[in-house]
Amino acid sequence: MAVEFVKYHGLGNDFILIDNRHQPEPVWQPEQAMRWCDRNRGIGADGVIFALPAQRDTDYTMRIFNADGSEPEMCGNGIRCLARFLDALESAEGHPPTLPHAYRIHTLGGTITPELQPDGQVKVDMGVPKLLAQDIPTTLVAREQKVIDQMLRVAGQTWEVTGVNIGNPHCVTFVEDVAELPLVTLGPQFEYHPAFPQRVNTEFIQIIGPKHLKMRVWERGAGATLACGTGACAALVAAALTGRCDRTATVELPGGPLQIEWSANNRIYMTGPAERVFQGQVEA
Amino acid sequence: MAVEFVKYHGLGNDFILIDNRHQPEPVWQPEQAMRWCDRNRGIGADGVIFALPAQRDTDYTMRIFNADGSEPEMCGNGIRCLARFLDALESAEGHPPTLPHAYRIHTLGGTITPELQPDGQVKVDMGVPKLLAQDIPTTLVAREQKVIDQMLRVAGQTWEVTGVNIGNPHCVTFVEDVAELPLVTLGPQFEYHPAFPQRVNTEFIQIIGPKHLKMRVWERGAGATLACGTGACAALVAAALTGRCDRTATVELPGGPLQIEWSANNRIYMTGPAERVFQGQVEA
Repeated sequence: MAVEFVKYHGLGNDFILIDNRHQPEPVWQPEQAMRWCDRNRGIGADGVIFALPAQRDTDYTMRIFNADGSEPEMCGNGIRCLARFLDALESAEGHPPTLPHAYRIHTLGGTITPELQPDGQVKVDMGVPKLLAQDIPTTLVAREQKVIDQMLRVAGQTWEVTGVNIGNPHCVTFVEDVAELPLVTLGPQFEYHPAFPQRVNTEFIQIIGPKHLKMRVWERGAGATLACGTGACAALVAAALTGRCDRTATVELPGGPLQIEWSANNRIYMTGPAERVFQGQVEA
Repeated sequence: MAVEFVKYHGLGNDFILIDNRHQPEPVWQPEQAMRWCDRNRGIGADGVIFALPAQRDTDYTMRIFNADGSEPEMCGNGIRCLARFLDALESAEGHPPTLPHAYRIHTLGGTITPELQPDGQVKVDMGVPKLLAQDIPTTLVAREQKVIDQMLRVAGQTWEVTGVNIGNPHCVTFVEDVAELPLVTLGPQFEYHPAFPQRVNTEFIQIIGPKHLKMRVWERGAGATLACGTGACAALVAAALTGRCDRTATVELPGGPLQIEWSANNRIYMTGPAERVFQGQVEA
């Protein structure tokens, strides 16, 4: 049986998109997604995203399986790709949207609203960041129940970390120079640190200016990726909370820049690209 | 314009195959191939292979561009994939071959003859290995014009190397334990060593037994790949020449095993798998 898919990427963070609108559950299992994500023997991707029918008061549901078979609650770069994919599907069916056009997407991390912009970028209402330790979740001892510039011992060093949940759990730490970091050895030690019972995404942030952060990221289940949308949002929240930057800034990732805004209504908006690469048919 | 392609891999060494039988030159330039080979923003592959019309007394011509835009003379894993691709194209056009069926393929490294086996594997007549220093080519001072267990200084160490050209240049060296090698730092220092004016593929070989070699490879223009067919042939030639193994052996690569035979007629035969992964359409 030939499965139709389309490959997209957002800043090099790449996904296999599957039209699963005819069934409420992903037609494929995480094991199949892992095989497809294999970059030499499969299609090659950071994850597989399924466009599912609406749940509750939304337009569609998103599910995503990472390359390691795990299922994240949400994925910032992935949901931008999903918005472009849905737009292409609807356009092919004779329903091109008027731009800007917003989709309300149900995810395991809540309802997220990506909005197609006239210039092809996608602006995503990522919702309200959660800061309570129990919502990260983390077992770190918190001040006023929040984990802000809290000491954490990892890899023989002490790090000041801030916990943010923006659909999925993040641990943000600030460093002098992100280029110098041994990310591949450090990343897994944060990801599997016992202080984070659901594991954690880790962002290492260098402050370039009040409107400019530089970031390297270790993604839970995916490793050192070129970009992580929720991570860029978490980084801005942590930096603004601790007075290190303004509430609107450019976050520069290895794959390129994202514009992040922490609005006065407490919601986070992320704007960035999503590019279609190719479509394909694979036997399953 | 949508370009049709099919992705294949041989032991994880993966290629984008393009039906270019209607034009004598590749329709696409190396720069386009590099973009397609990008694993995050492109299709993702070690190289792009073009199936071209016959030249001289052959059935087809193969051209291949590596991920770095360079053009190797030949590619052992690639030509197995090409044979399966040609078989699929011909079968779709109503000309399924009787198995075993051999294709004579013109390459920049000479005429190579892959033969489809009934079990789906592909046995490739890789031709006669060249051992003369000028044919490798290498400027290493040679005994009887051959470079066999010759001393070469690389990365502050002395290595005993044997030069073999099997359509493309190889430098083979024997080590106690291939798992221990810092391949990513060593590889480029061999590849760009001034002793090899056309650069070189480097095989590090561990002798497991007279019929079993274990290999790690640094491919010119592609880096540390899971498998290199010509490299496995060069390894067997170098090991048999120096009395380290028999003339028929299994070469175990990171991606899996290849059967290599150095026949009494002086020709090298390589037998291994080639797997179709998916087909796709990409805008160019």
